[in-house]
Amino acid sequence: MEAVVIGGPASNGIDNEIAKKLNLKREKLEHKIFPDGESYIRYPIELEGKQVIIVQSLYPPQDKHLVELLLALDAAKDLGAAKVIAVVPYLAYSRQDRRFRGGEAVSIKTVLKALRSAGADALITVDVHKEESLNYFEGSSINVLPLRELVAYFEDKLSEPLVIAPDKGAVRRAREAANILNCPYDYLEKSRNRITGEVSLSLKGVDVRNRDVLIVDDIISTGGTMALASRRLRELGARRVFAACTHALLRRGALKKLVNAGVHEVVATNTVPSEISKVSVASAIAEALRKLISV
Amino acid sequence: MEAVVIGGPASNGIDNEIAKKLNLKREKLEHKIFPDGESYIRYPIELEGKQVIIVQSLYPPQDKHLVELLLALDAAKDLGAAKVIAVVPYLAYSRQDRRFRGGEAVSIKTVLKALRSAGADALITVDVHKEESLNYFEGSSINVLPLRELVAYFEDKLSEPLVIAPDKGAVRRAREAANILNCPYDYLEKSRNRITGEVSLSLKGVDVRNRDVLIVDDIISTGGTMALASRRLRELGARRVFAACTHALLRRGALKKLVNAGVHEVVATNTVPSEISKVSVASAIAEALRKLISV
Repeated sequence: MEAVVIGGPASNGIDNEIAKKLNLKREKLEHKIFPDGESYIRYPIELEGKQVIIVQSLYPPQDKHLVELLLALDAAKDLGAAKVIAVVPYLAYSRQDRRFRGGEAVSIKTVLKALRSAGADALITVDVHKEESLNYFEGSSINVLPLRELVAYFEDKLSEPLVIAPDKGAVRRAREAANILNCPYDYLEKSRNRITGEVSLSLKGVDVRNRDVLIVDDIISTGGTMALASRRLRELGARRVFAACTHALLRRGALKKLVNAGVHEVVATNTVPSEISKVSVASAIAEALRKLISV
Repeated sequence: MEAVVIGGPASNGIDNEIAKKLNLKREKLEHKIFPDGESYIRYPIELEGKQVIIVQSLYPPQDKHLVELLLALDAAKDLGAAKVIAVVPYLAYSRQDRRFRGGEAVSIKTVLKALRSAGADALITVDVHKEESLNYFEGSSINVLPLRELVAYFEDKLSEPLVIAPDKGAVRRAREAANILNCPYDYLEKSRNRITGEVSLSLKGVDVRNRDVLIVDDIISTGGTMALASRRLRELGARRVFAACTHALLRRGALKKLVNAGVHEVVATNTVPSEISKVSVASAIAEALRKLISV
């Protein structure tokens, strides 16, 4: 069955790379914004009977990119696509994955339900904040982890490396990165002084003195978490601190904050466009797509 | 069964007015925007077993307001609301109601499907561009027409009035306004010169000379349609031209354009906030809600 890759307005070039790797035809979705701010999309080709792979990342402005994706999914179904696969390299709203307080929206559930009911038969995303969130999508889904590619970027730069997760939630990524680098890993444990209320970060299992440390996390937004981690690791004697993340949102001067916190170099994937988005997730996504496309 | 009115971030005060008219409790949805641009919403009260009336208009930024509404609808269902009624005074994307060219998204369908699958059991909107579009919403829906309120604003200002629709598609509104004012109505017919390609607007049935003309339309976006109509009516000898619209989007200096085109005064409802949004739709919506709320 014929398959075609469609690049949405927020595909950041990943559509093109995927199509080349899979030797598929690729088209850009026609797109404009009306004077009042409404989005318009149009497919420039026939979709009838085809497998349609729509690539659209949900980086800021997230809501605009989400609505464009909903329009594209719904239209693809309308236009007779046999199967619609949504490739969403950065899945916005993934951090609001439960009710931290009663009465809150579980935003990632709403987003995944909306993608599904708009017409997505299957979903591929990259390094979602919590993998369990994908259970809210009632179709096949694949969470692509681009750690191999991210770590490869640093491999030759690190001497006596050590991988650190900035908090307990990110420890799985640290373990996998450490496996690739064949080095130890740990996470920074947060504790609060019962009298002063001061938060401190400590390592239990490893000694960072005179070692190059690679911090890995899924998202850098304002850079606060990463900056705190770097500062602490430098205090603990780390020689150089490198930072790797999947999604570089980089709000409110995040990069400057990281430099000031002693980060030697920070690199991200291209799920979100930015000056540090140097590692492509296209190969990893193409590999996942091979499992979903019927030949 | 208890009913509560919830004001979304884009309710423009209509939530409060409705609640007062129906003698219902009203709460504002808690709302913030994270540094990266994601929206957060939270209900400050228990919803279990209640009828929840969520008021959220979809004026610009439309996509942000739409996503907030989807989050609110989905969360209301999750939190045990017995019935969820979406009150959407301005329904964005209503002009993209069919495929004008092959391959296009029918955006209003996508939006209405998304509202429904997020959790809206019923929908109330105001003066939707084409009433048939509401068939895409698979639940009860009411299209509220605020013409009585809009016309009342002008009633004492007009002498020897005449109502004109700026194009054939808006003629129903003109007829209803004319009924209220007990005066004649017509629409401007567009014709194109076969040789020069020039477009001209003409009236077939009425003589506007020395009369006050009220132009009625659903939306003023950039004001282009309304300005052309006004200019033509002045040429045809209208004494004064007044303009009434439901949704005042007012993009790209629309008001200035109208003044330059000879419009004496322009007024809109409060479905979209603007300096000319002087007529409230709350009474008309409250009346419609009475049909949907179970006592």
